[in-house]
Amino acid sequence: MGCIGITMGCPVGIGPEIILKFFAARKSGPSGYRPVVLGDLSVMRRTAELLNMDLEIAAWHPGAPVRTGTVPVRNLSDLDPGELAWGRPGIETGRAMAGYIEAAVRMIRNNELAAMVTCPITKKALNLAGYDFPGHTEMLAALSGADEYLMMLAGDRLRVALVTIHEPISRVPELVSRQAVADCVRMTERGLREDFGMEEPRIAVAALNPHGGEQGMFGREEEKVIAPVIRSWNGPGRVSGPWPPDTVFHRAAAGEFDAVVAMYHDQGLIPFKLLHFGDGVNVTLGLPIVRTSVDHGTAYDIAGQGRAECTSLDAAFEMAAAIARNRIRQRGS
Amino acid sequence: MGCIGITMGCPVGIGPEIILKFFAARKSGPSGYRPVVLGDLSVMRRTAELLNMDLEIAAWHPGAPVRTGTVPVRNLSDLDPGELAWGRPGIETGRAMAGYIEAAVRMIRNNELAAMVTCPITKKALNLAGYDFPGHTEMLAALSGADEYLMMLAGDRLRVALVTIHEPISRVPELVSRQAVADCVRMTERGLREDFGMEEPRIAVAALNPHGGEQGMFGREEEKVIAPVIRSWNGPGRVSGPWPPDTVFHRAAAGEFDAVVAMYHDQGLIPFKLLHFGDGVNVTLGLPIVRTSVDHGTAYDIAGQGRAECTSLDAAFEMAAAIARNRIRQRGS
Repeated sequence: MGCIGITMGCPVGIGPEIILKFFAARKSGPSGYRPVVLGDLSVMRRTAELLNMDLEIAAWHPGAPVRTGTVPVRNLSDLDPGELAWGRPGIETGRAMAGYIEAAVRMIRNNELAAMVTCPITKKALNLAGYDFPGHTEMLAALSGADEYLMMLAGDRLRVALVTIHEPISRVPELVSRQAVADCVRMTERGLREDFGMEEPRIAVAALNPHGGEQGMFGREEEKVIAPVIRSWNGPGRVSGPWPPDTVFHRAAAGEFDAVVAMYHDQGLIPFKLLHFGDGVNVTLGLPIVRTSVDHGTAYDIAGQGRAECTSLDAAFEMAAAIARNRIRQRGS
Repeated sequence: MGCIGITMGCPVGIGPEIILKFFAARKSGPSGYRPVVLGDLSVMRRTAELLNMDLEIAAWHPGAPVRTGTVPVRNLSDLDPGELAWGRPGIETGRAMAGYIEAAVRMIRNNELAAMVTCPITKKALNLAGYDFPGHTEMLAALSGADEYLMMLAGDRLRVALVTIHEPISRVPELVSRQAVADCVRMTERGLREDFGMEEPRIAVAALNPHGGEQGMFGREEEKVIAPVIRSWNGPGRVSGPWPPDTVFHRAAAGEFDAVVAMYHDQGLIPFKLLHFGDGVNVTLGLPIVRTSVDHGTAYDIAGQGRAECTSLDAAFEMAAAIARNRIRQRGS
């Protein structure tokens, strides 16, 4: 069924370690897709030695079969592990890391990979290498030629899409515009249909204010901005709200909604991390390629110590596989 | 060990029903305190008939023993159940409901009750009866002569105190002042020591902005307002933060903190209701009397239908008993 590429992420973060743990724990897997690593052979081998993990790490090339029981690595850099220090990215590691991402996009376009799963990078490491993107997702959007995209956090119990992301609370009310809410609802609905294979997704739109503004007593953004977007919705999915924020996530987790459109970062992330700490997946909707990501960072403070866990990577891999299958079914491509 | 009074709340809400269910399900209970109802005998009896609940509902007077197997009711109003309609409060029900609350405070002061647990009322019903309080808690503060108080939501896994409550998101940043944060931290710490019996409570103060402002990139309230309050803390408990909001509740639920001080309603209520939907308790800290409350409303839409659950009332009763015991131990009173 083809391969899914896992980019190694920052070579001095926890990426190499969680990839090794992912392969060590991996059974044949329900996905049907084979995981392959886009990264650095020497770094992977050195990490395995350091952690005393008895894994055969083998060079792999696009189109070649994946040998069972090995960790197949497409070698895309020639870093010298002796020169690297955990938690200390430099120009070389930054360039290498960016190269894994570029290669993944290229290989998906060449049909050598069905999807990509990304291990964490930092903006700092990206900038050291001379790339001016604010983050991973913006870089992938540019590389894949997407003119819009949406971050969704997805787990078994809860899926959350964000209207605003990294903004101070004081700026959130002005940024929650009809256009921003409408775009988020539209991309969420399409993503649930095409990527998650739902015929008629049920999307709950959260209110901005407590109790949904309580008839204007605690704010009017609900009636002025959010409700009109919901009323004018005419797509195939079912869009409802604005719902009181303090109960909508409970209702979604209980199965009443397939996703919640949240107005700001913590409105969505607080409940998501409470239910999915460690096993959440960050999915980028709206890209022409399939991309999921672990929902944690490079964790420089614990890199190289054997303390990182691969539960989010496990979940991100299975979700990428599911999305790749759904897209084939939905779009025939 | 004495009695704890349960006020019946709005007579046409779900109060009478959840009280009956509470008594029906009640075993001898770990609390040691006896529950007694402050309400209306006729309404309680009529509700039991309506719901086919075979319970003996008996008049009770302060100081009299509570007969095992009965629902002891201090009759404080003479409503005619035939004249009442579920979900439709009027002047009579409003006055009766306010009377139960006034009686409870009076009886605690007379040492006839050790604590009170309140069933829900509505502001509308209170206003119909001519009381001008914005809500239950404000009325109790006035009746008990408290000059400050704090709403805490408490459950087995999470305790949350709120710096701001019913405010639009757009006003939250200006309302999060050093004074407001300091007052909330102080009352939370004292409440955990005296009411929850913790010697050295660990209090996490949440940041206002995503990632705690990320060094000022997404807001500066952390460094300007919240951090100085934490630095100047010199009480017995351990106060830390400001912590990124999207992980602090997970950490608290995992046992790292005894309570979280949240900056705004949904920051605290979203995680609380996710973990404690149906079994959460609303505790009023800072009052001279012990008062807990169910964390839900009158639910007029399902009143009289037998669909309400008493899990929150169970939890509120046990928490009131625990607080009453702790106060005796701490204050010797």
